Amino acid sequence: MVPRRSFTIDTEKTTRTTYVLGTELTVNLNRCAPPQSKFFSIKCSPNVHYKITPQAKDRNAVPYPLTPNSVLIVTMDAVSKTANDSKLSVRYYGEKTEALGDALLHLTAVEISLDVDADRDGVVEKNNPNKGSWKWGPNGYGAILLVNCDSESTYKKTLDSEVDEISKVSDLQDMSKMILRTNGPAELPEGYKLTMHISQTTSENVRVFRPRTNVQKDNLFLKDYIMVVGTDMLTQKVPYLGGKTELEFFVEGLHFPDKDFDGLITINLSLLEPCGKDFPETPVFTDKVVFHVSPWIMTPNTLKPVEVYVCSTNDNYSFLKSIKNLVEKCGYKLKICHEYMNRGDRWMQDELEFGYIDSPHHQFPVVLDSPRDGDLQDFPYESILGPDFGYVTRHALNEEVSSLDSFGNLEVSPPVTVNGKSYPLGRIIIGVAFPTATRGRNMTQVVQDFLWAQKVQEPIALYSDWLVVGHVDEFMTFVPAPDRKKFRLLLASPDAGYKVFKSLQNNGHGKAESNSFILSDKKLQAENGYVQNCIDWNRDVLKKELGLDDEDIIDLPILFKVLEEKTDPRAVAYYPDMVNMIVLGDQLGIPKPFGPKVNGRCALETEVCSLLEPLGLKCTFIDDLAPYHKLLGEVHCGSNVLREPSPFKWWNLEL
Amino acid sequence: MVPRRSFTIDTEKTTRTTYVLGTELTVNLNRCAPPQSKFFSIKCSPNVHYKITPQAKDRNAVPYPLTPNSVLIVTMDAVSKTANDSKLSVRYYGEKTEALGDALLHLTAVEISLDVDADRDGVVEKNNPNKGSWKWGPNGYGAILLVNCDSESTYKKTLDSEVDEISKVSDLQDMSKMILRTNGPAELPEGYKLTMHISQTTSENVRVFRPRTNVQKDNLFLKDYIMVVGTDMLTQKVPYLGGKTELEFFVEGLHFPDKDFDGLITINLSLLEPCGKDFPETPVFTDKVVFHVSPWIMTPNTLKPVEVYVCSTNDNYSFLKSIKNLVEKCGYKLKICHEYMNRGDRWMQDELEFGYIDSPHHQFPVVLDSPRDGDLQDFPYESILGPDFGYVTRHALNEEVSSLDSFGNLEVSPPVTVNGKSYPLGRIIIGVAFPTATRGRNMTQVVQDFLWAQKVQEPIALYSDWLVVGHVDEFMTFVPAPDRKKFRLLLASPDAGYKVFKSLQNNGHGKAESNSFILSDKKLQAENGYVQNCIDWNRDVLKKELGLDDEDIIDLPILFKVLEEKTDPRAVAYYPDMVNMIVLGDQLGIPKPFGPKVNGRCALETEVCSLLEPLGLKCTFIDDLAPYHKLLGEVHCGSNVLREPSPFKWWNLEL
Repeated sequence: MVPRRSFTIDTEKTTRTTYVLGTELTVNLNRCAPPQSKFFSIKCSPNVHYKITPQAKDRNAVPYPLTPNSVLIVTMDAVSKTANDSKLSVRYYGEKTEALGDALLHLTAVEISLDVDADRDGVVEKNNPNKGSWKWGPNGYGAILLVNCDSESTYKKTLDSEVDEISKVSDLQDMSKMILRTNGPAELPEGYKLTMHISQTTSENVRVFRPRTNVQKDNLFLKDYIMVVGTDMLTQKVPYLGGKTELEFFVEGLHFPDKDFDGLITINLSLLEPCGKDFPETPVFTDKVVFHVSPWIMTPNTLKPVEVYVCSTNDNYSFLKSIKNLVEKCGYKLKICHEYMNRGDRWMQDELEFGYIDSPHHQFPVVLDSPRDGDLQDFPYESILGPDFGYVTRHALNEEVSSLDSFGNLEVSPPVTVNGKSYPLGRIIIGVAFPTATRGRNMTQVVQDFLWAQKVQEPIALYSDWLVVGHVDEFMTFVPAPDRKKFRLLLASPDAGYKVFKSLQNNGHGKAESNSFILSDKKLQAENGYVQNCIDWNRDVLKKELGLDDEDIIDLPILFKVLEEKTDPRAVAYYPDMVNMIVLGDQLGIPKPFGPKVNGRCALETEVCSLLEPLGLKCTFIDDLAPYHKLLGEVHCGSNVLREPSPFKWWNLEL
Repeated sequence: MVPRRSFTIDTEKTTRTTYVLGTELTVNLNRCAPPQSKFFSIKCSPNVHYKITPQAKDRNAVPYPLTPNSVLIVTMDAVSKTANDSKLSVRYYGEKTEALGDALLHLTAVEISLDVDADRDGVVEKNNPNKGSWKWGPNGYGAILLVNCDSESTYKKTLDSEVDEISKVSDLQDMSKMILRTNGPAELPEGYKLTMHISQTTSENVRVFRPRTNVQKDNLFLKDYIMVVGTDMLTQKVPYLGGKTELEFFVEGLHFPDKDFDGLITINLSLLEPCGKDFPETPVFTDKVVFHVSPWIMTPNTLKPVEVYVCSTNDNYSFLKSIKNLVEKCGYKLKICHEYMNRGDRWMQDELEFGYIDSPHHQFPVVLDSPRDGDLQDFPYESILGPDFGYVTRHALNEEVSSLDSFGNLEVSPPVTVNGKSYPLGRIIIGVAFPTATRGRNMTQVVQDFLWAQKVQEPIALYSDWLVVGHVDEFMTFVPAPDRKKFRLLLASPDAGYKVFKSLQNNGHGKAESNSFILSDKKLQAENGYVQNCIDWNRDVLKKELGLDDEDIIDLPILFKVLEEKTDPRAVAYYPDMVNMIVLGDQLGIPKPFGPKVNGRCALETEVCSLLEPLGLKCTFIDDLAPYHKLLGEVHCGSNVLREPSPFKWWNLEL
């Protein structure tokens, strides 16, 4: 809809105003008509056009009859060369020949457009008709903003979003460009000015910078970038440069979407008109643009790895060597967190989760730092945050942080389609207490709120509180597959475990001591019956929420045992928990289970290989018994993988 | 989608479970198959049915071949008479004749349905397929809840939502009924139980009550209603009554939608299965229902009045008499707030706003108490809150309360359609500072957040800070009309004011002293030029946001003057501000303007009547000069009108 502005003219003095191309001035002709006026006529410069409503019945009746609702609609088709160079006058008549007065209007036409990349192609186009709103989907529109959560410095780091100024010119790359395009006379008519403005709420989430205009573009230094609007600065004048010019702005996102922030940011630019001395100016034209902050996006196991992270401790030398061999074989980078930094905390999976943010002009990885805060707590900020590697965290408020806040309890599925609804970026998976439990551990609300607010990977809450450690990665993972949905869900399965041991017994291998020990332990059987119930409950939720069939799921033979923790029975893996593996393309690094040997080969390894190798996967069994399994974790708990972003663009989601 | 449950059977012992009608048990036949099993066969009771996937190629091949993915899907078609009265057995074979083992399953079938009025007809239907989600619109679904914000008591009042128990049996009328329908044997099999559960977040917004089951329905006293879930009670066992029975629950909403609460409430009911001693039960079936809390809804001037509220003060006797005459003539009730309560604060419009909440089973008015808190502050709670008259308020947090928080600055439009989007309940209108202002007064964020969160009357923010008092009712109101959009927007207009005075002068009435005084005052003219600018800016916003044409707007002849408040120039009405009227159907109570007289009649009154009477409206001019106008308010500021709710149901909105 064309913006319309009500305007008053006057028969007693000449009125002046500035007109913005693409708008309409509506003049109520009755308001200023001298008493007894019955007709009127219009004269104007050639670049001024007008319409009259209601239209006179006789189109050729000049002068026009004045009705109580007579409205003059004025438009112009070219910008002015000098102030007030265009004219329009209205003459009022009593009877056709008797002139009662003239209302003169002097007009200055300018072109003003605040522009962004609303069509999401990486280029700031001119005056996109949809720039003032935001819509999801491939037919959607609206510009995109990144939270400037990396740090341009590697030493003496701070998040770029936490400093009010631009610390390096490279920081501009993390911001979205916005261009103010103006065209008109060398100067605006006296008293007019342009002003950029944002709301109080928006000011917490965005900063806008611009270069000083008295400096040559190629000669700009850091000090030449000034903040226009942002924290504590809701509105500021911006220069009108005259002629046909473009003024560049850089827009910086400060916060991720969360429970109380939907991610949308509106920036306004107004032309203010003077109202005479002693009175404030009033805006006569406002252009607005809307940005959506990129959500934080997780990467499923099916995406290509970039770097593998693992801790070096005083007792994990051979484990580290195995991981190194595997990673080198795959051709990825290995990053080792040394002991001075990890202080013996080996749970690389638990302290952090890798994700990324994405826009048409730029993308970079962002680490989510867990409120777990073990001895590894400084690692994400100190060692990962840097140029084009962002950082975000959430701190628990009046809530106890539990083991369920470790990010072994935060995973993401590969892309799925569920009852026709597609999740091309997959769905986040977390573990919580049973919904029916009267007490139990949960992931802190602040982290849950953050994850839900990202919207593009709608989370699924599983039940993981039945485990001592309580992480979903203790009973599930995803591996790539060439067929079906392009992946399989692997689930730990005591039933599958017992099947292996029974089968061994049946084939005459039952004399292996561990084997008969397991099969004769009724308490262990009862415990595993309970564990299978717990996993089956999760299996049913995953089938429903990811749209999986039984054929999409593989049961891995894993037994658990139940420990009495105070009065709450909770489970741990009985032997190394093979589902807690590292997935690097088609290479799997699986905890070595140390099962009974048949013909010199571990029967559990044989079984797992027979389940996974037909999918083209290669299984490497890694001994993590002493340094990880005995401390209630395995290969996955002790590692982390930075992966490439999804090729799917989050703004193309149909939400 | 049919709820499916993964289930394990065992060849070494009989398994027992409870089956809920309408679900499917899926049994992975491989899991418990004895080693070397190649075939299987099934036997079952007549009320047990099964399917096998993948389907055997030869449908008549009995026994069936066992594949790695063989899954048995079990359903039942009637409830059990006694526990475990239905059976199913799976026999495994090595070769066709060689039986390797039997897995026996004993089944108890029950029917469980947690029911609500999901089709919104005032009756709790049985197992509505959409009861677990919520959708807006005439084809929408999902149950509705009221915030129990009235007080069953008239003395020693507290909001019903603030007490953990039911204070009177009549309080049940304010709650939504929910029914647990069960059918099955007299008792659940040993160890099974039903439990109702809600999330932590939900527990802040809802309470569920039920009557004790050991008391005859006709004999229930207050003490016989107990809270099932709610604050600090996330889950509780509910009784299974046996046979075909219904258990009634009463659901009470505690909070209105707000910035951090979308109004949706989920209540779950689960059947828990014992997992053997020492282990917690696991839910084997969960039914859920979703409610949406009714928003607080405002009533535009076009709705029928019920009661008029006005203050009695020591100086407004004749004003009160005029109002009384007008209200009596219209046939509505007049409620007078006496001096012991108002303590001289006469601004009845400003302390409170009337609205209502609505559901298919019940509706009642709700007063929104302003954070203004003048001397009238106790009136809404002490005098209005009561049985079936609710109360809600918002307190400013770390924000200064300004004159813009008075509810003369909170209005609502009649129903409108804007660019094809319909607002059948109208749109809320508030006044704030100019978006481009570097400083200025605003409505407090808590109240703005509340208004926006109600969603059904999407607010419009006008610019009212140009006025000393700063209320939108100083320059606009709506009156009913027989034609066009069924209403007119009335706007104060200095231009229209000057037109009247000029016309008087022109017709020889210019000698009236006040008249020539006004026309010769250049300062006043400049001030009114500025005021017209401010009102025109609002006019343009209202035209756009309400989809109005100039023909939908009437300009009333009102002049303003500008006072210097510190350095901020702000406006007040020069003579009684006629747009600040009370609208009672087609009767208007308008501030008497005391304009120049022509032929013994006030020219301003004549002009206003000529504008409004053609719409079938009757104008009564009320002298409010001394007790209201001189204190910077008028008739509307000094009164309030409780109106009938809209016949349009808010849940039928397409949002």
